[in-house]
Amino acid sequence: MPILRDDPKEAEIVSHRLMLRAGLIRQSSAGIYSWLPMGFRVLQKIEQIVREEQDRAGAIEMLMPTIQSADLWRESGRYDDYGEEMLRISDRHERDMLYGPTNEELITEIFRNEVHSYRDLPRNLYHIQWKFRDEIRPRFGVMRGREFLMKDAYSFDLTAEDAKRSYNKMFVAYLRTFERMGLKSIPMAADTGPIGGDLSHEFIILAETGESEVFCHADLVELTAPGDDVDFESDLTAIMEQWTSKYAATDEKHDAARFEKEVAAEKRLSARGIEVGHIFFFGTKYTEPMKCQVQGKEGELITVQCGSYGIGVSRLVAAIIEASHDDAGIIWPASVAPYLVGLINLKTGDAETDAACEELYGKLKQAGIEVLYDDTDERAGAKFAAMDLIGLPWQLIVGPKGLKQGEIELKDRRSGDRESLKPDAALQRLIGA
Amino acid sequence: MPILRDDPKEAEIVSHRLMLRAGLIRQSSAGIYSWLPMGFRVLQKIEQIVREEQDRAGAIEMLMPTIQSADLWRESGRYDDYGEEMLRISDRHERDMLYGPTNEELITEIFRNEVHSYRDLPRNLYHIQWKFRDEIRPRFGVMRGREFLMKDAYSFDLTAEDAKRSYNKMFVAYLRTFERMGLKSIPMAADTGPIGGDLSHEFIILAETGESEVFCHADLVELTAPGDDVDFESDLTAIMEQWTSKYAATDEKHDAARFEKEVAAEKRLSARGIEVGHIFFFGTKYTEPMKCQVQGKEGELITVQCGSYGIGVSRLVAAIIEASHDDAGIIWPASVAPYLVGLINLKTGDAETDAACEELYGKLKQAGIEVLYDDTDERAGAKFAAMDLIGLPWQLIVGPKGLKQGEIELKDRRSGDRESLKPDAALQRLIGA
Repeated sequence: MPILRDDPKEAEIVSHRLMLRAGLIRQSSAGIYSWLPMGFRVLQKIEQIVREEQDRAGAIEMLMPTIQSADLWRESGRYDDYGEEMLRISDRHERDMLYGPTNEELITEIFRNEVHSYRDLPRNLYHIQWKFRDEIRPRFGVMRGREFLMKDAYSFDLTAEDAKRSYNKMFVAYLRTFERMGLKSIPMAADTGPIGGDLSHEFIILAETGESEVFCHADLVELTAPGDDVDFESDLTAIMEQWTSKYAATDEKHDAARFEKEVAAEKRLSARGIEVGHIFFFGTKYTEPMKCQVQGKEGELITVQCGSYGIGVSRLVAAIIEASHDDAGIIWPASVAPYLVGLINLKTGDAETDAACEELYGKLKQAGIEVLYDDTDERAGAKFAAMDLIGLPWQLIVGPKGLKQGEIELKDRRSGDRESLKPDAALQRLIGA
Repeated sequence: MPILRDDPKEAEIVSHRLMLRAGLIRQSSAGIYSWLPMGFRVLQKIEQIVREEQDRAGAIEMLMPTIQSADLWRESGRYDDYGEEMLRISDRHERDMLYGPTNEELITEIFRNEVHSYRDLPRNLYHIQWKFRDEIRPRFGVMRGREFLMKDAYSFDLTAEDAKRSYNKMFVAYLRTFERMGLKSIPMAADTGPIGGDLSHEFIILAETGESEVFCHADLVELTAPGDDVDFESDLTAIMEQWTSKYAATDEKHDAARFEKEVAAEKRLSARGIEVGHIFFFGTKYTEPMKCQVQGKEGELITVQCGSYGIGVSRLVAAIIEASHDDAGIIWPASVAPYLVGLINLKTGDAETDAACEELYGKLKQAGIEVLYDDTDERAGAKFAAMDLIGLPWQLIVGPKGLKQGEIELKDRRSGDRESLKPDAALQRLIGA
């Protein structure tokens, strides 16, 4: 747990600063990071929430490699389009390869080789894999890194109408995914850029330090995502309607006149936002040049209709911090916290305090609660500061003074509230948390 | 679930053939594979067993990136040594990068920047990450691929004696890891190659189709790995003794005269084997040139003693198949099977059969049992063949004839035994399996 006391000078934004200070990441080259144990735990929790919500929406997990053949990208016509952001590689036989920045071509190739009948549609395949974009000026830590972890899903349908249904499923899955991480996300109509297509939404979370300016109807911030009883096989149009009928746009797409016309003055919200997800319906943009077709009911060949759906998994670690921190450090939502509880021993070496801590530690572990135990011989002040910095939702503070009264302290990191309690009462509170 | 009926002609060994036929993987470029959903499930299960046993032995998980800076490798002197197997990359600013084939340099750099005191030792850090070795002639599927998933752990100790203790922990963890996957692994003294050092063991599993010839005392095959009550903080010397005192060598290290002298004729086993793990103690080979030191008790600077410990996670998928298959296909050990049970509906569309299958499917899922339901309209023979090919440990076979007697069939894939049972009795059997 390597904590830095001072702000690292290279960090321009708060999440980058806090991720370095709390020992979550270390830079290994420009825009390329190692994830230290604490940061890796957060990354894994985010990945698991993404996975669960993809699975719930009916997408199927697989895994494509990081290194791809350039020939595939020549087939779609994107090899030359993609520019210098693509990391191009020559192998020992001088074959042109690349580090995948995205996977439309590769999944389309797999699909066209394996799936031949309309009966095998719809299908949505996803993977969670490292990508590389050779940013000219990587910065802001993992927010705009070069090697980054992305979840990308690809839907395959027989008709544009079916494809729209697949799109809606991912839309709803994304609302749920971000809400489970304690984020308020707002879908905004978006440009499609190098992915292509004509229907696209970015999922933006609001944070003062966001990279882009966004404009939306204030009511959107009050909406809550569908619950876990949502039926992804049902008609999701009403949910889509609720989330897309009110004005919301990034500055790229912003239309000031429309904003003023459609939204009452007191409901006009302009804020800064961070993109954490982006979904696309692009129809036959890849399946047409790559000849990805299936046989229909009458034996006719049908070009498959597709969409793709990305979530920036490593970027989310930073985005959550941007949205949830204070002057003392990170404030993790419980669902993605590296540990739920930090246990602070105020007098390591004192027999009674050590025994009380070890009993608590054992009981928490037994109850399946993830706990980080600070039994170093730092001063109390340093321990408090470190625990606030790393931002676990709860702190259990155990010292000889309290123990004389038979009590320990339970601190809520977000509110800062501290309460003295019998150890068993504190345990009960955490087991219910 | 894309099954191939015929043997793919490019596959020279049985695991490659079966992985392609059963739809576990597809090649995307030479030596680079995509993992289809079924193969990905196996890969994840293997990864999880590796992770659990690393954690049990006290190693801490983190994650290093795939792309590394060439400068680090110049510091250790390995940049020029490594030859053409290293995939060298130039980024847009013409900086020399590489796709990591292993991580001794990077972890040493992280360690020297973060850890400064003897009090922070010992430490063992591991990650499970994709690696790349640009093999001149990639073949045998994921057995000798170019992009492959490896678990690599790195231990840091104050003295060579402590480092030997760390080495022993990993040794025992490896015995347990492979045994949990249904493999019989035999540690053999090994050459250290480009990693370096003077103490090293390869973990070899026996399989007729193994890549190398191995020679060992037959008693080693009868040993069982330590149970999950093994205390990794205790003295593991007796276990080491048990596993290393009898003759065992790959052909590289084989000494025919010693073999004949040390092993009675009837105990001399010569067989073919597959390397699935390799551990190294190399002392200060990297920490010396890279100046990785900590302060000792008296403030003196001590160069850290290190080892590294690799498991070929993606290669294990193939190795398990080499060790466990028959003419009909794969036979997965339950611990790594993509699903525990395959449910075969012999008459899809028949109301009674469909209802019985769906009830079973629901009950199995509810009991937390992973089940794959074949409700396609293939012929029964094709369904049996496909289910045998993909090799799930159990098959539940449901058809109208059996249902008239109130019975279904339960088939054990390994033994081939089939038994007629009431549905509830079959369920009970599987819940206990």
